[in-house]
Amino acid sequence: MHSFEANPALKTNTEFKITPVSKALAAELQNEMDQKTKPLGALGKLESLALQIGCIQNSLTPSLEKPTILVFAGDHGITEEGVSPYPSEVTGQMVLNFLAGGAAINVFCRQHGIALKVVNAGVKTVLPEHPDLINFKVAAGTENFKYRAAMTEMEFESAVHRGADLVSVMEAGGTNIIGFGEMGIGNTSSAAAIMACLTSLPFAECVGRGTGLDNAGITHKTRVIEEAVGNCVTLDKTDPRAVLRYFGGLEMAMMAGALLKAAERKLVVMVDGFIASAVALVCLQWYPNCRDYLVFTHLSGERGHQKMLEHIDAQPLVNLGMRLGEGSGVAVVYPIIASAVTFLNEMATFASASVSERSE
Amino acid sequence: MHSFEANPALKTNTEFKITPVSKALAAELQNEMDQKTKPLGALGKLESLALQIGCIQNSLTPSLEKPTILVFAGDHGITEEGVSPYPSEVTGQMVLNFLAGGAAINVFCRQHGIALKVVNAGVKTVLPEHPDLINFKVAAGTENFKYRAAMTEMEFESAVHRGADLVSVMEAGGTNIIGFGEMGIGNTSSAAAIMACLTSLPFAECVGRGTGLDNAGITHKTRVIEEAVGNCVTLDKTDPRAVLRYFGGLEMAMMAGALLKAAERKLVVMVDGFIASAVALVCLQWYPNCRDYLVFTHLSGERGHQKMLEHIDAQPLVNLGMRLGEGSGVAVVYPIIASAVTFLNEMATFASASVSERSE
Repeated sequence: MHSFEANPALKTNTEFKITPVSKALAAELQNEMDQKTKPLGALGKLESLALQIGCIQNSLTPSLEKPTILVFAGDHGITEEGVSPYPSEVTGQMVLNFLAGGAAINVFCRQHGIALKVVNAGVKTVLPEHPDLINFKVAAGTENFKYRAAMTEMEFESAVHRGADLVSVMEAGGTNIIGFGEMGIGNTSSAAAIMACLTSLPFAECVGRGTGLDNAGITHKTRVIEEAVGNCVTLDKTDPRAVLRYFGGLEMAMMAGALLKAAERKLVVMVDGFIASAVALVCLQWYPNCRDYLVFTHLSGERGHQKMLEHIDAQPLVNLGMRLGEGSGVAVVYPIIASAVTFLNEMATFASASVSERSE
Repeated sequence: MHSFEANPALKTNTEFKITPVSKALAAELQNEMDQKTKPLGALGKLESLALQIGCIQNSLTPSLEKPTILVFAGDHGITEEGVSPYPSEVTGQMVLNFLAGGAAINVFCRQHGIALKVVNAGVKTVLPEHPDLINFKVAAGTENFKYRAAMTEMEFESAVHRGADLVSVMEAGGTNIIGFGEMGIGNTSSAAAIMACLTSLPFAECVGRGTGLDNAGITHKTRVIEEAVGNCVTLDKTDPRAVLRYFGGLEMAMMAGALLKAAERKLVVMVDGFIASAVALVCLQWYPNCRDYLVFTHLSGERGHQKMLEHIDAQPLVNLGMRLGEGSGVAVVYPIIASAVTFLNEMATFASASVSERSE
């Protein structure tokens, strides 16, 4: 067993060495797919996925090993402003639900044999020890970003660094495909503020119902976020790192470190919904090379997600109207990603199956 | 083992007794879902699926047993008109590929533990005996519908009847969820002709590239179909049964019988892409009550499919740009349908997990 002790000697500026994927095998991969017993391109998005994963692994016979989802949990100071219909304690309660196996993410991970680890990035309540819980708690929740930065420099760096460490451990254990989920009452507010800063889209297009606000609730939440962003006049709102530190959650900062390390180590990275995509938005502006490693699994029902994905020119695989977080979209969509790899490895070719090719 | 001997004593008008699903448990099912540890409605289409399947099975704890895909194969006389870039022999060759396990549908069924049976409904070439091949051959392909009805009354009835028989056998074996695929070079032409008749949409909106026609090929195919439909002046083009007999394939008629029997027996029916949806379109006009049992798995890349689904007000679960047939969309999407059932059965409630509910 790996021990997940937080590294006490923190670097103050975690750096990542992310290179674009090699396209050396791209033409050969395409040719392999075109020889399969099907019309050219007839497997649609499965073909682009197979090409992407083949290039990431630089292999004509890619494989998905020990698929893993890390769910990062953290509390948010912004909940003091009444931006969510659920109380902040639900963050910790849901972590206990994850550990008991009763949440949606548990159900879907069991269904598909995906390993699930829950990471305490910054939950306010004290959580018990549990074999599936990694205690990487940086602080007891964030500050209220309406008045000050959500995280100090040191907290932010600790979170990023610990996220990166986690992925290193997972990779050493044989995982080559990973997805990230989150739990944090209030974190759609963080994601909306980050989106507004980094896309320059109007606040009203970035703010949504979250866990189920009514129209009055959305109006209030939008006003809170607009004021908060307006308040921090000295912040460089085009600096993705600074924006994530100011408005993000500890679970989001840790996810960013995990995502960037996964790209550095050439893992396939499955991106979930609105919160995870906000983290991806930050990472794409911070280290643009991480792009090649990302698979956007689904379009969330949360307002803002579609425009966010359009801004980064990302095509989600499916739209199931889900808006739950936890990595649930990743888990539900994982079999489709696996289908891309299995068809590439297992389908017969026209020649091997003695099927006539098209007459042109 | 069941033997699949064709019934020699054919009825001339197979009838189906299809009743709408009971909605007796609908409110209770919804309440169950609303108690789960997630915001209301946050699992999107998974929730509507769970509701549909719960109602079909009239159970608060529905289950999916022995998921099965039947792939019906048949040849088409219309291929004489040069409507496909692939030669007609590919139908039989692909059946051999199915039996050897090398086609896309084999790969995806293996991935998800879906039982796969291949049904010879009307392949021109002589096929060998094989444990996974059900020989229900009605004729050596259809007639060319540009000049005459694709099937005689007797052929059509035989196909429908045998399809129904097959589903009865599957159900007796414990299957409660079933999907249908097809293989038949030329059958996008059949589906387009049927769609034009039963929806009254312009031919240009019904005809697509099939296995990969270029623009000139589409123009030619459209002209062939328009002429063919124009030729049969005595046909009642609003009679779904007559339209299927005139323009369909033996594999499509057999699929219709299978679909209707599955609805009669209250199985969950997974509908694949353009061809299978054309069969569903026929069935919905023939026996409107079958509606409640159908799950439309995906939007095909074949032009015409979107308009066809809009015409019957069907929302496909996903759009992966697939356009392969064989039931491949059903197989790839099956895990999502299974997710709907597993979350309903396995997720904790707010009460059982001691999670606070929303504050309103």
